[in-house]
Amino acid sequence: MNLKRYLPILQWAPDYSRNQATSDLVAAVIVTVMLIPQSLAYALLAGLPAQVGLYASILPLAIYALFGSSRTLSVGPVAVASLMTAAALSPLAEAGSAEYLMGAVVLALMSGLMLTLMGVLRLGFLANFLSHPVISGFITASGLVIAASQLRHLFGIQSGGHNLVEIAGSFLASVGDTNLPTLMVGAGSIAFLAWARYRLKPLLGRLGMADRTADILSKTAPILAVIVTTFLAWALQLDAQGVRLVGEVPSGLPELALPSLAPDLWSQLAVSALLISVVGFVESVSVGQTLAAKRRQRIDPDQELIGLGSANISAGLSGGMPVTGGFSRSVVNFEAGAETPAAGAYTAVGIALATLFLTPAIAWLPKATLAATIIVAVITLIDLPALVRTFRYSRTDFGAMLATILLTLVHSVEAGIIAGVALSIGLFLYRTSRPHCAVVGRVPGTEHFRNVLRHDVELCPKVTFLRVDESLYFANARFLEETVMDLVTREPELTDLVLVCPAVNLIDASALESLEAINERLGDSGVRLHLSEVKGPVMDRLRGTELLEHMAGGVHLSTFEAWQALTDRAAA
Amino acid sequence: MNLKRYLPILQWAPDYSRNQATSDLVAAVIVTVMLIPQSLAYALLAGLPAQVGLYASILPLAIYALFGSSRTLSVGPVAVASLMTAAALSPLAEAGSAEYLMGAVVLALMSGLMLTLMGVLRLGFLANFLSHPVISGFITASGLVIAASQLRHLFGIQSGGHNLVEIAGSFLASVGDTNLPTLMVGAGSIAFLAWARYRLKPLLGRLGMADRTADILSKTAPILAVIVTTFLAWALQLDAQGVRLVGEVPSGLPELALPSLAPDLWSQLAVSALLISVVGFVESVSVGQTLAAKRRQRIDPDQELIGLGSANISAGLSGGMPVTGGFSRSVVNFEAGAETPAAGAYTAVGIALATLFLTPAIAWLPKATLAATIIVAVITLIDLPALVRTFRYSRTDFGAMLATILLTLVHSVEAGIIAGVALSIGLFLYRTSRPHCAVVGRVPGTEHFRNVLRHDVELCPKVTFLRVDESLYFANARFLEETVMDLVTREPELTDLVLVCPAVNLIDASALESLEAINERLGDSGVRLHLSEVKGPVMDRLRGTELLEHMAGGVHLSTFEAWQALTDRAAA
Repeated sequence: MNLKRYLPILQWAPDYSRNQATSDLVAAVIVTVMLIPQSLAYALLAGLPAQVGLYASILPLAIYALFGSSRTLSVGPVAVASLMTAAALSPLAEAGSAEYLMGAVVLALMSGLMLTLMGVLRLGFLANFLSHPVISGFITASGLVIAASQLRHLFGIQSGGHNLVEIAGSFLASVGDTNLPTLMVGAGSIAFLAWARYRLKPLLGRLGMADRTADILSKTAPILAVIVTTFLAWALQLDAQGVRLVGEVPSGLPELALPSLAPDLWSQLAVSALLISVVGFVESVSVGQTLAAKRRQRIDPDQELIGLGSANISAGLSGGMPVTGGFSRSVVNFEAGAETPAAGAYTAVGIALATLFLTPAIAWLPKATLAATIIVAVITLIDLPALVRTFRYSRTDFGAMLATILLTLVHSVEAGIIAGVALSIGLFLYRTSRPHCAVVGRVPGTEHFRNVLRHDVELCPKVTFLRVDESLYFANARFLEETVMDLVTREPELTDLVLVCPAVNLIDASALESLEAINERLGDSGVRLHLSEVKGPVMDRLRGTELLEHMAGGVHLSTFEAWQALTDRAAA
Repeated sequence: MNLKRYLPILQWAPDYSRNQATSDLVAAVIVTVMLIPQSLAYALLAGLPAQVGLYASILPLAIYALFGSSRTLSVGPVAVASLMTAAALSPLAEAGSAEYLMGAVVLALMSGLMLTLMGVLRLGFLANFLSHPVISGFITASGLVIAASQLRHLFGIQSGGHNLVEIAGSFLASVGDTNLPTLMVGAGSIAFLAWARYRLKPLLGRLGMADRTADILSKTAPILAVIVTTFLAWALQLDAQGVRLVGEVPSGLPELALPSLAPDLWSQLAVSALLISVVGFVESVSVGQTLAAKRRQRIDPDQELIGLGSANISAGLSGGMPVTGGFSRSVVNFEAGAETPAAGAYTAVGIALATLFLTPAIAWLPKATLAATIIVAVITLIDLPALVRTFRYSRTDFGAMLATILLTLVHSVEAGIIAGVALSIGLFLYRTSRPHCAVVGRVPGTEHFRNVLRHDVELCPKVTFLRVDESLYFANARFLEETVMDLVTREPELTDLVLVCPAVNLIDASALESLEAINERLGDSGVRLHLSEVKGPVMDRLRGTELLEHMAGGVHLSTFEAWQALTDRAAA
């Protein structure tokens, strides 16, 4: 049973049928055709040689099929992780250098170890701290940075930069050196890919093709662009015209090797590896959950960490780069009918064959074509309506989102995501540090108590009922002290104060001390402190504390009971 | 009115009476007698020349009298802030060097500017993130480190170290060089001070002295130790015996001067200045609030920031060190009858006179005497029962407390406090990320709904009521998704799920998206999602979102209403 949990392959492999194998194979062929240009393109985006992208699409896919809990997630290089890889490595070494390559492999291995460790320790909840607005803002901003960073390949110029400001400055400074043949290849590819994305599917539909088939076929357009421009580059010898090509790619499968274990390198890359891990995990889980729910399946987030972790470890041991579950590929995999993770393993075979036999052709592939596929792919990551939606719903969430976007655009991806996480935690704490408090009174003739400001309620001049709509903990402990003392100084006749606690899910040690201080100060002012509607788990804790011993008033099961006891006494 | 808020002196000075002046003067004399040895001792603790402690006890006290909101807080050098000053400066320069001295002045000025800024921006709530267990653990650990650090002065040896491990190692390595006359002065002082603390007051009581007078008088014992040992050192020429003395102290008042504005120095000290500010502020406010409550006065935390901030700025401009409100001095000031901050201003005059006329005598004061006063003073900071109390009440709070203590003891004060704050925030978030959830059923014959696991309640097989005892936000959004989907896969007959929300004080954008995902996935499984008992402020937000439009079920005012509507339908 436990073995099945940690090796999800045991859940489906014993009953694997010929029908399932057929479905998986069909899906694998389609995903392979999508993945060849993607793996080359994302290697380019990460500043790595083309074969690294291919290597990252062989062993990691096969390993994920053993350990992953999602049936249809398509693992491999993805755009955002590749951008983050480039951002992590560029301060360390020059793109293309041996150190840079070693850094990518170390990043994959370290990220794999982190993910696996998080899975074994069941720390998947850590990913929750990446709130929806932050991750959505981060991906939108990353999409913009990625698209901008590819302009240089499209124009055939030598520019650089790691954020929008740097990229724009560098681009404008060198746009005069534009290589026209390159621009023609790039612009042509973009035009074709955009046409394929928005027009090809309806056209195929009009030609009588089934909707799903048309959809899947239109998503394989990049391979067509690759084939055509590679052929053109070879036939017209475009490299002589200054069109930069992918160039010689070593043929053959990757070799297994342990990357550098230099502590310096590992510590320099640790934060980046963690961020790549967490962002990749969040993306994978949300894609995986969405797809699983459509077939009433479940994925196990902690096992998913182990699946992604082992995939990245294998990427690190086979000369690859960080991998994670890609959104568009996974959807195609799902729509094309993949039923088990075996589809991923078949895809790995497809990429391995490509690595063995297609590398001589890949050498002639123009980089501008890859840049075009990247740009058309990442445009879909940019989700501006989410900004509007978040702004309308919550200004605090929007603040965290905007900070993430701006810092990602003008500083760096890592600063963006760290600021977003810190700000969303800070804003949540700030929000809970000034909880909503209401003086409540009795709705006449009932046992209900409601806010005096919103409802027409009965009050008792000597007894005040104060409802606190938040757990009491260190961040709002002092706020509570001030609120209560303010109330007491305003009402000189007061003899009893009842804290109404149905929304108090926790009283931590700081709040306990504050309640003791409140009780003591109220005592000095001749006011008794009471509690009402204390929840079971909170009351279990309070028993045996000095607060209950020293409290002049009592703990009342319901607010109405407190009302009866205290107003009777006040009247007597 | 506003001027009175920012200049609290205007609240009391216009009605200042002769009676009040007499009370303040008496208190000031007593506090001056306490403060002279303390200011010298805390300068020694901070690794600074003796006069820096005196300078920090002149202008800052006068300025606090203008801006401070507490009537009886006694501002000046205190033990913990002095330890933190030493910890901040020792990596930068050698104790006693000109750079070290400049660092102390910059630290005071920067801390003053930070506090003032926080006050003006009303950021006093930031101090709330220093939870009670963390601050209490930090002060206990600081007390231990301070006491240990003074042993070298007591034994007359040259040892060092900034945490307990280093101090113990260094002490053991050099204890062989103990200077016996120094040890006699030190041990004698400790014995006398301990006797004065625990035996003098009862003795004076038996001699017929009033309780309060005996209490106050017994707290001026340090000045007696100072006078006696200074006289002995001079009469016996103890410096020739190897007893280290305070040495020549420049006579005369401090000069006003702007300290170094070197950006390097400021950025190196920024974190330390922030920590000193926040810790000092928290201490001052809690002392100030406790004393104010005894006389039914209030202090304004944001104004208190401005008061402490301006005091520190003036310390930075007059060659002083960081200051804050001291606990024991403030209590003596209060008990001795101080009625207004004028008592602080009179104390400043007292210290100024001492600086003008007593410095020749101070030169003969043995450092061992100061070490003895420090040790006897900080022993009261060590609060071990608080550890036991916190352990019993909450293991999480105890965890944060223990981490603070251990890191302060074995690493550094700054690491201790930062770890404590980070851990208490992390543990709070962790706690709220897995909220208590309960399936509830109807208590027969009532409108109440309680946990099925704790109570004997009615259920309806096709309708499940799930109560979530926490605000819904990013840290628990995914947990909610998993909880709900687990529930649904376990109950195949389910047609309706009601989320019971009386404890939900907030639904943020992440939780909203999760609810939308839950609604969609439930829809795929043929289950309708309902909400009940949604609070007013939460409902205000939800209106106009897509969730309410798309939700298959409804929003019910009370859980009982939902029960009636849904069980009727299920029965029909």
